[in-house]
This record gives sequence, C-alpha cells and structure tokens, in this order.
Amino acid sequence: MCLFYERNPAKYGLTLNEKDADFSAKVLLKKSLCVWIASWGFSVRQLHREFLRAGSNVMQTFTFYASDDKLENRGNKISYTGAQINEAACDLAREVANEGDALVAGGVSQTPSYLSCKSEKDVKAIFKKQLDVFVKKNVDFLIAEYFEHVEEAVWAVEMLKETGKPVAATLCIGPQGDMHGVSPQECAVRLVTAGAQIVGINCHFDPETCVRTVKMMKEGVEKAGLKAHYMVQPLAFHTPDCNCQGFIDLPEFPFGLEPRILTRWDMHKYAREAYKAGIRFIGGCCGFEPYHIRAVAEELATERGFFPAATEKHGPWGSGLEMHTKPWVRARARRDYWENLKPSSGRPFCPSLSVPDGWGVTRGHAELMQQKEATSKDQLKQLFDRSKTQ
Amino acid sequence: MCLFYERNPAKYGLTLNEKDADFSAKVLLKKSLCVWIASWGFSVRQLHREFLRAGSNVMQTFTFYASDDKLENRGNKISYTGAQINEAACDLAREVANEGDALVAGGVSQTPSYLSCKSEKDVKAIFKKQLDVFVKKNVDFLIAEYFEHVEEAVWAVEMLKETGKPVAATLCIGPQGDMHGVSPQECAVRLVTAGAQIVGINCHFDPETCVRTVKMMKEGVEKAGLKAHYMVQPLAFHTPDCNCQGFIDLPEFPFGLEPRILTRWDMHKYAREAYKAGIRFIGGCCGFEPYHIRAVAEELATERGFFPAATEKHGPWGSGLEMHTKPWVRARARRDYWENLKPSSGRPFCPSLSVPDGWGVTRGHAELMQQKEATSKDQLKQLFDRSKTQ
Amino acid sequence: MCLFYERNPAKYGLTLNEKDADFSAKVLLKKSLCVWIASWGFSVRQLHREFLRAGSNVMQTFTFYASDDKLENRGNKISYTGAQINEAACDLAREVANEGDALVAGGVSQTPSYLSCKSEKDVKAIFKKQLDVFVKKNVDFLIAEYFEHVEEAVWAVEMLKETGKPVAATLCIGPQGDMHGVSPQECAVRLVTAGAQIVGINCHFDPETCVRTVKMMKEGVEKAGLKAHYMVQPLAFHTPDCNCQGFIDLPEFPFGLEPRILTRWDMHKYAREAYKAGIRFIGGCCGFEPYHIRAVAEELATERGFFPAATEKHGPWGSGLEMHTKPWVRARARRDYWENLKPSSGRPFCPSLSVPDGWGVTRGHAELMQQKEATSKDQLKQLFDRSKTQ
Amino acid sequence: MCLFYERNPAKYGLTLNEKDADFSAKVLLKKSLCVWIASWGFSVRQLHREFLRAGSNVMQTFTFYASDDKLENRGNKISYTGAQINEAACDLAREVANEGDALVAGGVSQTPSYLSCKSEKDVKAIFKKQLDVFVKKNVDFLIAEYFEHVEEAVWAVEMLKETGKPVAATLCIGPQGDMHGVSPQECAVRLVTAGAQIVGINCHFDPETCVRTVKMMKEGVEKAGLKAHYMVQPLAFHTPDCNCQGFIDLPEFPFGLEPRILTRWDMHKYAREAYKAGIRFIGGCCGFEPYHIRAVAEELATERGFFPAATEKHGPWGSGLEMHTKPWVRARARRDYWENLKPSSGRPFCPSLSVPDGWGVTRGHAELMQQKEATSKDQLKQLFDRSKTQ
Repeated sequence: MCLFYERNPAKYGLTLNEKDADFSAKVLLKKSLCVWIASWGFSVRQLHREFLRAGSNVMQTFTFYASDDKLENRGNKISYTGAQINEAACDLAREVANEGDALVAGGVSQTPSYLSCKSEKDVKAIFKKQLDVFVKKNVDFLIAEYFEHVEEAVWAVEMLKETGKPVAATLCIGPQGDMHGVSPQECAVRLVTAGAQIVGINCHFDPETCVRTVKMMKEGVEKAGLKAHYMVQPLAFHTPDCNCQGFIDLPEFPFGLEPRILTRWDMHKYAREAYKAGIRFIGGCCGFEPYHIRAVAEELATERGFFPAATEKHGPWGSGLEMHTKPWVRARARRDYWENLKPSSGRPFCPSLSVPDGWGVTRGHAELMQQKEATSKDQLKQLFDRSKTQ
Repeated sequence: MCLFYERNPAKYGLTLNEKDADFSAKVLLKKSLCVWIASWGFSVRQLHREFLRAGSNVMQTFTFYASDDKLENRGNKISYTGAQINEAACDLAREVANEGDALVAGGVSQTPSYLSCKSEKDVKAIFKKQLDVFVKKNVDFLIAEYFEHVEEAVWAVEMLKETGKPVAATLCIGPQGDMHGVSPQECAVRLVTAGAQIVGINCHFDPETCVRTVKMMKEGVEKAGLKAHYMVQPLAFHTPDCNCQGFIDLPEFPFGLEPRILTRWDMHKYAREAYKAGIRFIGGCCGFEPYHIRAVAEELATERGFFPAATEKHGPWGSGLEMHTKPWVRARARRDYWENLKPSSGRPFCPSLSVPDGWGVTRGHAELMQQKEATSKDQLKQLFDRSKTQ
Repeated sequence: MCLFYERNPAKYGLTLNEKDADFSAKVLLKKSLCVWIASWGFSVRQLHREFLRAGSNVMQTFTFYASDDKLENRGNKISYTGAQINEAACDLAREVANEGDALVAGGVSQTPSYLSCKSEKDVKAIFKKQLDVFVKKNVDFLIAEYFEHVEEAVWAVEMLKETGKPVAATLCIGPQGDMHGVSPQECAVRLVTAGAQIVGINCHFDPETCVRTVKMMKEGVEKAGLKAHYMVQPLAFHTPDCNCQGFIDLPEFPFGLEPRILTRWDMHKYAREAYKAGIRFIGGCCGFEPYHIRAVAEELATERGFFPAATEKHGPWGSGLEMHTKPWVRARARRDYWENLKPSSGRPFCPSLSVPDGWGVTRGHAELMQQKEATSKDQLKQLFDRSKTQ
Repeated sequence: MCLFYERNPAKYGLTLNEKDADFSAKVLLKKSLCVWIASWGFSVRQLHREFLRAGSNVMQTFTFYASDDKLENRGNKISYTGAQINEAACDLAREVANEGDALVAGGVSQTPSYLSCKSEKDVKAIFKKQLDVFVKKNVDFLIAEYFEHVEEAVWAVEMLKETGKPVAATLCIGPQGDMHGVSPQECAVRLVTAGAQIVGINCHFDPETCVRTVKMMKEGVEKAGLKAHYMVQPLAFHTPDCNCQGFIDLPEFPFGLEPRILTRWDMHKYAREAYKAGIRFIGGCCGFEPYHIRAVAEELATERGFFPAATEKHGPWGSGLEMHTKPWVRARARRDYWENLKPSSGRPFCPSLSVPDGWGVTRGHAELMQQKEATSKDQLKQLFDRSKTQ
C-alpha cells in the first residue's frame, strides 16, 4: 500500500489566509529572484518543513500556475522567466524532502491559453516549458492538476507521459462533471486512457464533495475495465452550497472564507472516508494548514504504521486537555466530545449558506480571454455594474 | 504618537490551529533544549519574522505561562528550568527585532500558585524568577498579562516596577469585570496606581468586547484624575456568546473554534475602532495569524506613516483580484464588496451561538488547585460525569 | 383554464399548530357526535369559511385518514363509525361551499391495512366504505391523496373511477420517488393510466420540492404520450433537509416546526413557480393558514380574474404599512423590500438544517404493523432506546 | 391566588399571520358596522371562544387602538365612531365570557395625540370616550396597555381609576426603560402610585425579555415599600436582537416574523419562568395562537387546579404521538425529547439575528406627527431613500 499526503503551498498563496511565505509564483516575479532565494526561501522552506513534520510524504513544488502565459497576465510585471522560478521551487522542495522520507512532485495546471481558445499545439508547448525544468531537476513524479476541462487535462497527461515519469491527474470538478458537461466517470476513463496512473480531484470543493466525486471516477474506471490509483486534494473549507464551478463562485471567495475552515475533527472524518473509498493519495489544497494534515496523518496512523513527528506535541482527540487548569476544560479531553461537537460560528448576523455567483460564461467568452494589460477602470466599472444585476 | 502591534505566539500554541512552531513553552520542556535551539528555533524565529513583516513593532518573548509552578503542572515532565526557556526566548525575539525596527517585550502572566491560594510573597517570588531573566537579557519593556484577578495583577505590576523598565498590564476580563467582581474601571485605577504606564485587555474575548472593556478602563482612569496609555490584544475569534470568563467556557474551546475566526475585514474594523477609542498599543492574542496583523497595520497605515513590508504582496481591499481570470471574481475587487459581506459558515447543521459552560468554580475551589501528578482516570471520570449534568 | 385552491384542514389537525377546530377525524371519535355537530361544527365551518374568503374554490371534506382501520389504531376508542364522521364532514363542507363559488371534494388516503400487508381486496374495501358516503352526499369530485406507495394509490384510483366522478391523485413523495423506489415520472404514468385526470403531489415536502416533483411527473406523462392536469398541495414548512420520506423524519416533526413556516412572500413565489410549471390545481397542506392561501390567490389574481374577498383588508405587498405611525415601518411599504428580505429566526442557538431520522423500516416491517391496543410502555421503551443509537 | 390568561386578538390583526377574523378595529371602519356584526361577528366570537377553550379566563375586548384619533389616521376612511366599535366589541367579549368562567377586560392604549405633543387634557379626553363605553357595558376591569412613555400611561391610569373599577397598566418597554429613559423600576413605582393595582409589560418583546423586565418592575415596587400584582403579555416571537423599541424595529416586522414564532415548548418554559417570578396575570400578545395559550395553561394546570378544555385533544408533552404509525415518531412521545429540541429554521440562507432599524426619532419629531391624509408618494419616496442610507 502506498499512501501519500500532500499540499501545494503555492496555490492561492496570494489570496487565502496567506502567511507571508504563502505567495504564488506569479507574485514572486515582482521580486528579484536572488533576494527571494536568499531571504524568502526561508519561508518556503519552513512551510515545506512544517508539512513534512505534520506527516506529508510528498513535497509538491511551489509552482502552481507558474507557466509563462499565466505569469504575464493582466498587468503583472515579469522580471524572471517561469523556468527560473520553477527551478528554484524544485530545489527548495528537494532540500526539505531530503530531511525526511518524502518524494518530490512537480505539477502543471490549466492554462489561460486554453481558456483563450489557443490550439492544442500551443497549449502543449506551455506544458513543455515547465516539464523541461522538472526533468532537469529530476522530480520523482508529475501531477497534472487543477483542470476544469478534461480535454485540456488529457493534453497535459499526454505531455507528462513523454517524460517517462509516473503521472497523476486531478480535475477541479464536482459530481456535475467538467465545464463542458463531461461526467466524472467519463473524465476518469479519458485520463486513464491517456496514460495517467493516478486520477482524482483537487481544489474547488470540500472534502465530502471531492471524495464523492472520486468515487464516481473510480466507478467509471472500473466499469470500463481499466485500472488506476486514486487521489484527492480537497479544500479545507466547507462548501455545501457550491454549484458546478466550486468555491470560486461563492461570494466569500477568496477573502471571507474563514467561517468555512474545517476543524481537525472534520479532517479525521475526511481521512477515514477517503480511505474507505479506496483512495490512497490523500492530501489537501487551499486552506490546509499543517495541523490539518497532521489530523489526517493521525487518523490513518494505524494504516500507515506510524504517527507524524508533530504528534509529539499533540495529544490525540484532545487528551492534552487533561493538563488544563479549568476542570470544565479537562472534561473535554475525550473523543466523543469532539466528534459530536457542532461548532458555532459566533456570527449570528450571517447566514450558513450562500448563493453562488453564476454568470454562465465559459471558455471562449470575451470576459475570460487572457490579456496582458492590467484590467482598466472601464472594464472594472462594467464588471461592478454587471455584478449588481445578477 | 506611539503605536505598537504585537502578538504572543506562545500563547495556546498547544491548542489553537497550531503550526508546528506554535507550541507553548510548557510543552517545550519535553524536548531537549539544545535540540530546540538548534532545530525548532527556526520555526519560532520564522514566526517572529512573519509578524515583523506584517507590521508588528513589538516582539513579545515566547514565554507565556513559562513560570516554574505552571511548567510542573499535572504530569508535565520537566527537563529544563523556566530560566533556560525564558533566556532562549529572549534571544530569539531580540534576533528578529534587530532585523527591523522593533522592540522586545518580556511578559509574565497569572500563576497557578495564586489560584491555589498561595501567599502574596510566594506569588511574587514566581514573578521574580522570570523577571531576573528579562533584566539580564535587557528586554525593552515588560508586560503583566492574562490576569483574571486584578489583585494578582497588581502584585505583578509591583514586581515589574522594581526593574525600572516601562510596565504594561493587561487583564483577560470583559465588561463584567474580574473574577471577584471588580469593575474594569476600578481594575484600571488599581493598576495605574500600582505603577503601570499602559493598561488594557488581552485574550478571552473578541475585538469588539475587548475594545469596549478598554473604554471602560479609560473612563475609570480619567474619572480618577489619573493618566495612562491603553493597550488591547483581543482574540481573533468572534465570541458574542461568552459570559464573564470568556472563550475558555465556550464548548468549542480550544479545538473547534475555526468558524469563529475573524476575516481581514473584521480586523480593519477592529483596528479603526480601537484607534478611535484612543488605544495606541493595538495587537492580538490567540487566533491571530500574520495576515490579521497585516490588516490592522494596513488600516492604520496613514496614522503610522507607512505600510507593512508584507503589503507588497497584498493589494488593499481586494484590489489584487483585478488580475483574476474569472470576471465575477474581478468584480469583487472593491472595498464596499468586502466591507458589506456577511460571510456564510458553510455549516447549516451548526448553530451560530453556543451556551458557555458555567461551573461556577473560582479561586480556592478544590478542582482548580494545582497538582503535580497527571490527572487520574478517576478524576477524569468525575469530570465527564459532571459535565453531563451541567 | 381551471384554477383551484384547496386545503385539507383535517390533516394533522392533531399535531400541527392546531387551533381548537383543527382536530383530526380520528380524535373526533372520542366525542359524542351530536355534541360535535352542535358545538364543534362551528369551528370546522369557520375554518372552511376563512379559506373560502382567502380565495379557495375547493372545500375538501374534513375526512383525512377517516377510514375505519385507521380510526381504531393503537388504543383509540371508537364511539362512532367512519361513515358517521364522513357524512358530517360532507355536510359542513357543502354548507360553506354554497356560501361562495366553491366545489366540494371528498378524499381518501393511504391505509394502515396496506402497510400491514393486507390484500388488494381488503384495502379496496376500506376505500369503498368512504366512497359510499361521498357518493351519497354527492361531492363534486374525488381525491386519492397522501400515498407513499404508488401501488396503493393505483388501487385507490381504480375504486374512485367506479363512482363516475372526476378523480385526482396525489402522492406524498419527493424527487427520489415512492417508498419502493418508483420514480415520479413512472408514478405519474401509472396513475394516469389507472384513470386519474389530475395527478400531483401533496404533503411531506416544501413548495419548492413539491413543484419540482410535479414537473418530473409532467415530464413522465408527456413522454408517455398521455394527458393529464396537474396539482400540488405542499407543506407550508421549509424542508430542504428532508430525505425521501419527507418531514415525518425531521426531528422537529410535528411539534417544533414553527421556525420553518413560510411567509406570505414565500407563498407568492411558490404560486408563481407552480403556475409557470403548468400546474392548475394549486393548494396547500399541513401548516397552511388562510393568509397563506390568500397570498397564493393574490399572486395569481390576474390569471384568475379576481382578488379573494379577504384582500379587502390586506394591502398587496405591504402597502397597508403606509398608515403605520413609525416612519421606518412606512418605509417598508414596498414590494422589493419584502421580496428581498431574508428573515431571521431569532434563534441563534439553533441550527438552520436538521439531520432527518432514517430508520430504514418500510412496508411489512414489524414496527409498522397496525395494532389495536395502545402502544405499551415496553414498546415505548424499546423505541426510546433505539432512537438514542440512531 | 388569582391567575389569568389573556390575549388581545385585535392587536396587529392587520399585519401578523392574520386569520380573516383577525382584523383591527381600525380596519373595521371600512365595513358597514351592521354587516360586521351580522357576518364577521362570527369570526371574532369564534376567536374568543378558541382562547376560552385553550384556558384563558379573561376576554379582552377587541378594541386595541380603537380611539377616534387613531381611527382617522393617514387616509383611513371612517364610517363609524369609535364608540360604536367599542360597544360591539364589549358585547362579543361578554357573550363568550358567559359561555365559561371568564372575565371581560376593556383596554385603552397609547394615543397618536400624545406622540403629536397634544396636552394632558386632550389626551385624557381621548381615553374618556373609550371609558364611557366600558362603563356603560360594565366590563369587569380595565387595562391601560401598550404605552411607550410612562407619562402617558400615568395619565391613562388616572382616568381609569375614576371609573371605580380595578385597573391594570402595562408598558411595551424592555429592560432599558421607556422612550424617555425612565427605568422599569421607576415606571412601575409611578404606575402604582397613580393607582394601578396590577402592573407589567405587554407586546414589543419576547417572553424572556418581558419576564425579565417585569422582575425589574417588581424590584422597584418592593424597594419603594409599595404593593402590586404583576402581569405579562409578551409577543409569541423570539426577539433577542431588539433594541429599546422592540420588534417594531426589526426588519421582519410585521410581515416576515414567521421563523421567530415560539413553539409550545417555548411556551411551557415561559409560563414556568413567569410564575416563578411571582407574576399571576400571564397572557400573550401579537403572535399568540390558541395552542400557545393552551401550553401556558397546561404548564400551570397544577397551580390552577385544572386543565383547559382543549387539552382533551392534546396529549401533554407529545404523548399523543404514541398512536403514530411510524416507530421513529412514536419514539418522540416523551418530555425530554421536546424540552431539549433545538428546532431548525429550514432557512440556511437566512441569518439567525437581524440588525434593528434605529432612526432615533421620538415624540415630537415631524415624521411621527399624526396626519389625516394618506401618506403621499413624495413622503414615501423620502422614507425609502432614507431607509437606504441607514
């Protein structure tokens, strides 16, 4: 049995509860790269290290969306090539992986070029540039992740296969399928047929939804008489109110998601459900903190054969509270207390669910087209006006 | 005008959304100290650094509850003296403070000895041991913080004054006053009379409640014809449902508080309210992440005359979203959107408020007495049984 | 175009927010029938009258579950025959119908005999006894309503057809289909094939769910090349959290449903959605008060060509508030205010959704068997114990 | 011991979940009075009767706000004098009271004249006209109710005393006191001193708040060495989020209050709390249905010595569910189930609390002045605009 934990610290670093270290590669470009490696490298390294101690045994390179076409989007000033960034990220991941028993995975994700209706050849060329770095730096395996359209994901898998390394592929879709209406079952079949050894879901939805969707993928693969391993990297946010495009559409995205953050007990439940569903690459995406991964690792300690290093400072199921001064807090030092708790939001003026935005624009729509210039004031005004009439 | 930001990363490190670095000094003792300084020092240092970049100009030493009587509580194995821990913490804080324009503050807090009805002399001796380190390491000023009883806080202030350093004093109480029923107004008068130059509130309640309580303290001080500076370090959790003892009593304490975490926009509001109330030492306690402090610093950038370093990667009021691919997300790149958002919890099966525990036990009660042995199974069972009948 | 409004005041009279008049026929048996007609007749009559004034043009007889096998259930003492009760109910309905322009409908519903696995012949004999009264009293049409199993509903329709009167048939199911898993589409086809001119849904779910289910029935009927009219009589309670068996399973059923009651504005929305779906018999079931039906009638006043009598005392869309003393209440005298209001529950300690009971027992299970003796203490204790382990 | 239950069915009949019968006297004037007595009298009579059967032993006349100055407000067409309406209401109340063992109480309430700054003499003349009818019809006692300013309530009590009948006086205020800031304690003292034998609170707040406020009144009376009986007639809506002016200010007032309606179990708790507080006139105001009063009467059956007539069809604490078909519903036939239930709203998109309007206008403000003409479109527009900037 092979069991992985993973988190991509780069993803949405710009937006979500970011620690200072938690920036995206895109933003990096604004800084001198050597300064980054000298001083900010500390924080990326520290982030990898905390997840390693929490139980992760895959270090995913800090390269989310780090393709050249994405980096030059909407007024972003570029001082460095994607290649430079990807290389530095590989080095940092490998350095920390070597501190423990961890693998390094390099990842590519969907491209603005695809959304802007560029050709298969153009899109594949984008992937190729990132892959060249991953091969040079000799990562252990590759992930094609965060694809809303299975067509583009298949293109990515085809490119990744050419490296000869193991290939995983995850879509950011829910039970309703991809943005073109292809079902999870069918998506999985196409990805496996294209050559992916591991398939699954990442980002956009909460653990419950993602596990449910991976189950549908597994069902499709098995029905087609194919074989695959399965993988899941959900959000650490509760999103029962999402429609097909996930948390991007929620009014709280990305700067008001705090009340949706999962507790460690939610994570225990997630880990168990994922494991029971036959998923063996169990990780996390936006919103995951090291203590979330630690909870996943603790839930599955028996299956993996060990507790994560970080457990030395974390009594399981609240047992550390036995040392608390107040007797009513000591009384909470037990599993059934935390398993059954329904935590309050402390926000009585807020609802518990939201109505997602649903503009109904998809690939090829003018407003989705990539542009190099910054969004203009006029463009913004049009968007604001439109948002009021939705 | 003097304006500070601060956060004590040690506090509740054991329990709250902890990163691996975020342990309490008490837990530290389980590790070899030299290992800690060699390897874990990285994470404490990194934590200080992130708050520095977020805009803090006070580094508070990582010494919360690091008194010898607390460290030997309920089965905790002690390998090192409190003095060793306090010294190491001072060095780490000073090292990072020197990277920027920051002060170092050393803090003492309430003692189990007081709760166990030890004498004034005994309690003062506890403070003395920590102070000796702070003087030796030459911290810039001192804080007596996290006191539930003003009587003990006054004792602490009297000891701190003897060092000749500036003294701040904060209680962890709300508008109802301290655990003996002394009003915030009267508490403040006693602390100022005892010699504190800065008085205020830390921990136990949300920003709104803490600012309201500091206002009451200010009212008391001014009515008495005294003078003082004011300080506030609230939780980063919404706690409108607390009674006099604060979030300790909430059923979610300490492992289910996630839905209560403040957004950055809540922090803007807090910073403004605190500033308007005349408070000039504006910081945070449990639950604060660097991005929370950054929001405080950004709200008050005009008053302070500068933005925090971390702002270079964070467009104010969501303006970074102008670069987002999806047009409906770009439409959120404006202040009024985020100011008026009522974020959902994504938890429709959870209530929005909780009923706090209220066991009604106070200083001197048998169940509050300090003990060195671990809580026994029998003791735990009695607590569990009692908790069911509350 | 034929448009009806209806409500069966007898249904769940025992349990739901009952006014004194709002008893079920089953309970009636405990009273002397002549006393009932002399004194309680006032209240049944008054109830019919209020719905008539609110805009109903169908008076449904007060005979829900008034079959002999139901009346003798679990310790209920019987002083009168079902026939006596059914006759009295027909007279009261007709008396009030004659005060306006209304029809009288007699209804039969599912039988305990079916749940207890009695034969088709036995079950049909139960229906026959009620039908004899309806024929004798010459009601205008017949409704087979509140069936969880389409098989039994078909039996009822077959019996109703024999009277020669128009026949409507409604199931109390949701989008997941009947208790044997037959889809709404298929259920509708079977009912129309058996001879029902009107088919639809009543009870168990909220308006949104019921309208959605009737749409599925319509889809099935049209796909099969058949023809029918459509009917809907939902609950006046929001039930988004129900599973296949509807609000019976909600923990709040039947004595804690108040927070779920629909506002009049919810009713406007319901009426419009039902009408747009092609439904022309639009009524209500448990929880409907006359003011709810009035809102339905007001929403569809243009389509029907008249406002209900009760509108004379009810300004549309809050316009009556123009006369209010307080200016901020006068400011609410407008449609967009009420249409967009998200009403609070005033219950911050309560969640917004519940987890329904799901015991998984169905037709034929021992605990569903009809019995004449009252539920014994032993039986109750077993149920209580079991409910704790669900 | 004397124990009453009461409800004024006229109050807010216009607005709140009204049954057809539940109109206010003000609206009545639009109808020919003889038509009203001939046909609508049925519904008023029926309403009195249902409350009588539910356990009320006071019938309060249907005369809320039925003073001439109120009846001619803001475009209301007057066909009849207040005297005619008041007389008819007395007759109806007496007729039903005689069917049981009930008293008839006549009530006066605050006047628009007071809000418009008319003189004491003018205001007292308004009360006099209603009192003349009550004396002529020989009601059993008098209530001065629904006063926001104790000054006006004292004037009313002074007039009521002149009739020689027993006098009760209730204010519609909360713990913060009347609109001029007079505390509940002081208000009570003034009312008792003016001659009221019974004092208390009605309307505007939920039971918990009203009972708390009556306790404060009792405290004031006792501290002053005076004697009185106590009375409470709260809303049947949860209003924890109100400020000093009560539910009028809530955004849901008056057409979206449904989710706040109390359950019968809430009523049990209310009745017990009121009784324990020494209150002996325990009734209800807006939102009360007969089944609510029945719950109050059932909770206090031992103290009163009898169950209400309506209990014959209502098993206490859900025991009627023992007859239910579904076993999981039978399992709910017990007191602890219903006492501990936290009922869901079924509205996950709604918050649990609201922010009340707070325009800060009080007696004498132009927008509160009485006017005979209907509110003009211009006036409405100004109000709408203002409401958007609050």
